[in-house]
Amino acid sequence: VTSKEPRVGESMGAVTLVGGGPGDPGLVTVAGREAIAAADVILTDRLVPRAALEWARPDAEIIDVSKSPGGRSTDQDEINRLLIEHAKEGRDVVRLKGGDSFVFGRGGEELLACADAGIDASVIPGVSSAIAVPAIAGIPVTHRGLSQAVTIVSGHVAPGHPDSTVDWAALARAGSTIVVLMGVRTLEAIADALLAGGLDPRTPAAVVADGTLPSQLAVRADLAGIAQAASSADVSPPAVTVIGDVTGLGLIS
Amino acid sequence: VTSKEPRVGESMGAVTLVGGGPGDPGLVTVAGREAIAAADVILTDRLVPRAALEWARPDAEIIDVSKSPGGRSTDQDEINRLLIEHAKEGRDVVRLKGGDSFVFGRGGEELLACADAGIDASVIPGVSSAIAVPAIAGIPVTHRGLSQAVTIVSGHVAPGHPDSTVDWAALARAGSTIVVLMGVRTLEAIADALLAGGLDPRTPAAVVADGTLPSQLAVRADLAGIAQAASSADVSPPAVTVIGDVTGLGLIS
Repeated sequence: VTSKEPRVGESMGAVTLVGGGPGDPGLVTVAGREAIAAADVILTDRLVPRAALEWARPDAEIIDVSKSPGGRSTDQDEINRLLIEHAKEGRDVVRLKGGDSFVFGRGGEELLACADAGIDASVIPGVSSAIAVPAIAGIPVTHRGLSQAVTIVSGHVAPGHPDSTVDWAALARAGSTIVVLMGVRTLEAIADALLAGGLDPRTPAAVVADGTLPSQLAVRADLAGIAQAASSADVSPPAVTVIGDVTGLGLIS
Repeated sequence: VTSKEPRVGESMGAVTLVGGGPGDPGLVTVAGREAIAAADVILTDRLVPRAALEWARPDAEIIDVSKSPGGRSTDQDEINRLLIEHAKEGRDVVRLKGGDSFVFGRGGEELLACADAGIDASVIPGVSSAIAVPAIAGIPVTHRGLSQAVTIVSGHVAPGHPDSTVDWAALARAGSTIVVLMGVRTLEAIADALLAGGLDPRTPAAVVADGTLPSQLAVRADLAGIAQAASSADVSPPAVTVIGDVTGLGLIS
């Protein structure tokens, strides 16, 4: 992949945040695909469908800013700086993320950084893994008579951690399906917090790893046993955890 | 639009549930578009992007099963019956819904009905209006430091109604951004229930009608005033209500 020369004398480029969906390239949107195909520069992540990058122009510059858990990563300030720098050089920049840019995707921070720098920025929403991964595993996150709400919550910060803004005991009582993203490492603490909040230990739960991909793996147990079951199955990120009666519908075995 | 004759002697067709996204045809997925273009029969709804139906084959049969609030409608049993009948006649059937089929889209009921009838059925998830409509209006449903969770809740059943499975007082304390779908009629009751549950009356809120469409209208106020503000602006369905500090970020004015 070669870099395109800045178009000297042209006006500033723009930044488009594109949600790349949960992994299957068919779950990128029509508008997202068009933005990828038109971009001069694409800043991409680990969880983006690889096949979607083949839609890029041969002369587009593709920059991998993957943030792998615990590994080397490009920090958010550096990503913001790259978005702005390339747009100021007159390039149209796509920021391609897995899932949706605004569901724990830090899209809001990127929009604010662009606004501060005077760069035009827009958003093409994506299919969120929080809804689509359960769907492909046969779990509807809402279902008439079972669930009139779904809460999508980050497991990145464990319950009780000083940085946590989630009241897990209240969540246990809210009556919504609970979908946890980035919660493999903290799953036991999350299950414990929900149990302590009064959620029935027999509540059906599932952990779906590599959702929508050929390597998809689903582990099912009740809330009391889900952390042990996921651990025994060696579930590793990315994974989506669903807790609630909808998990027991068994639409797909 | 003319009906295709059943292919006598061929095997049964299949049913594909396709999420059509929030309204902008660019927010249909690549796989959803392909399914629409390949279908023999499409059962469609009021909130589906009209332009997406132009991707259908000229000989595809398009059946509008719109359910308009309070008006004439095709009931769910009849929709299930149509899905099964057409598939049994050897046709490939697309069930096209606005948003995502599993976010208050009754996709689970349709999958169960197909399974009971021995019909192959699959799901192509869509972009949910609950996330995308706020996004296009400049509201990230999660944002680092402000919100580590988002609850998507149906306003179809008012708080306190015997059919309600949501504990609104618990939801008020959970710390998640709250996104209400189908809540124009019940907005005042919902705001009252959240206030009674202890949510700060100064919490920023917004109602976005016709999200992602040229006719999009956004009304902003604090939680205490949002129902009156929406009423004064004559907001009508479909609309998405967002309640939470993320609403105050003002990414797009």
